[in-house]
Amino acid sequence: MSRESEIRNTAYRTTPRNRVRRLPKRGHYDRETVHRVLDQGLIAHIGYVIDGQPYVTPTCYWREGEQLYWHGSSASRMLRAQKGGLPVCLTVTHFDGLVLARSAFHHSINYRSVMAFGTARIVDEPAEKAAALEAFVERVAPGRWAAIRGPNRQELKATMVIGMTIEEAVAKIRQGPPVDDEADHALDVWAGLVPTAIRVGAPVPDPLLRPGIAWPEHLNGWTAGANVDDILVKYEK
Amino acid sequence: MSRESEIRNTAYRTTPRNRVRRLPKRGHYDRETVHRVLDQGLIAHIGYVIDGQPYVTPTCYWREGEQLYWHGSSASRMLRAQKGGLPVCLTVTHFDGLVLARSAFHHSINYRSVMAFGTARIVDEPAEKAAALEAFVERVAPGRWAAIRGPNRQELKATMVIGMTIEEAVAKIRQGPPVDDEADHALDVWAGLVPTAIRVGAPVPDPLLRPGIAWPEHLNGWTAGANVDDILVKYEK
Repeated sequence: MSRESEIRNTAYRTTPRNRVRRLPKRGHYDRETVHRVLDQGLIAHIGYVIDGQPYVTPTCYWREGEQLYWHGSSASRMLRAQKGGLPVCLTVTHFDGLVLARSAFHHSINYRSVMAFGTARIVDEPAEKAAALEAFVERVAPGRWAAIRGPNRQELKATMVIGMTIEEAVAKIRQGPPVDDEADHALDVWAGLVPTAIRVGAPVPDPLLRPGIAWPEHLNGWTAGANVDDILVKYEK
Repeated sequence: MSRESEIRNTAYRTTPRNRVRRLPKRGHYDRETVHRVLDQGLIAHIGYVIDGQPYVTPTCYWREGEQLYWHGSSASRMLRAQKGGLPVCLTVTHFDGLVLARSAFHHSINYRSVMAFGTARIVDEPAEKAAALEAFVERVAPGRWAAIRGPNRQELKATMVIGMTIEEAVAKIRQGPPVDDEADHALDVWAGLVPTAIRVGAPVPDPLLRPGIAWPEHLNGWTAGANVDDILVKYEK
């Protein structure tokens, strides 16, 4: 077993911060599950506090081991001022469909989500910053980094990258059919799942694209109809 | 002009809390835009603070005028304890696709998001609670409430509904092609959009569904291939 898979087979510690209280059976603390849910997403919701007021900012994110990275957000001014770092909760959610029960009470949705807790810090070191940005582009379209014009010094300076070590995390997952009360099974109501997924549409070339530039091989994963989760995920079960 | 459309034509006040600082052109404060982004979504990310620690919980939500409602979350214990209500930031994000530029720096995503600020309160009054739950089901599948078994007193008690008046809100939207530096247009790199949308898959009947129960008319919007935004939205441009 590789070092990485050994780490993935361990679990995050559970504390009052990440322990699932409501419907605890839906909680998963093992790194493999948490990482997979994270790796299937592109947009996270970052929660942070300024003067007691909560803010939730959506932003692109990516993971390298136990590090999560994202682009600068409204928290950045706060981060500059706060040398010790800013406590954040980074949440990722995949909506997998409607769960239609026979009773109003048992209606639900299927989903996979992760809440990850840590302390955000600005990634200022140019090499780590450039490596993080490259990892982000390569994650979305492996091979694209070499094809595009890389950031110059000025652009690198204008790009805010924020990093966070995952201190605690939990995945919360609901899958499967509705669970109705036994007595309700006799009702004359359609029950079941309506699955949903983020799917790719037909590409739209930039109106300013020079003639003769073909769709590149590094975007082949992003075929019309593909499920974005499947394109993004790195690990297989 | 109806009273409702008069209200929708007004804007939320801008304060330091909701004013967009980074890329201010992407910010929209008019109620029509904010409401439309909200009405196209099903899952919100709710940010709140407990003992200085931010939490972001994903949950289903719905809107009635300037009221936002959602199901009970981890904040509920906190809410019970805190009579005055809990400050929250409710954020909704739609991921509309990759924006692939010729330079790393101008890579982006297209999205529509809303941040709404307010004070969460528990909806305890049984009539408001039942009405809110009915509005939620009817929003997803108009006509389904009458078909299913409604909540009994015990179920209604076990369901936590949280409400919030929108005090301030802002929509942040990026659409359209990549915007590259003029000099980069000559590069031999494919640039353009890869659109994405949440699409409906083929329904999966409950394995316990009684034979002879047909797909109901009230779910006809949820046809395989449909865009969930289009199913959910109430208002047209």
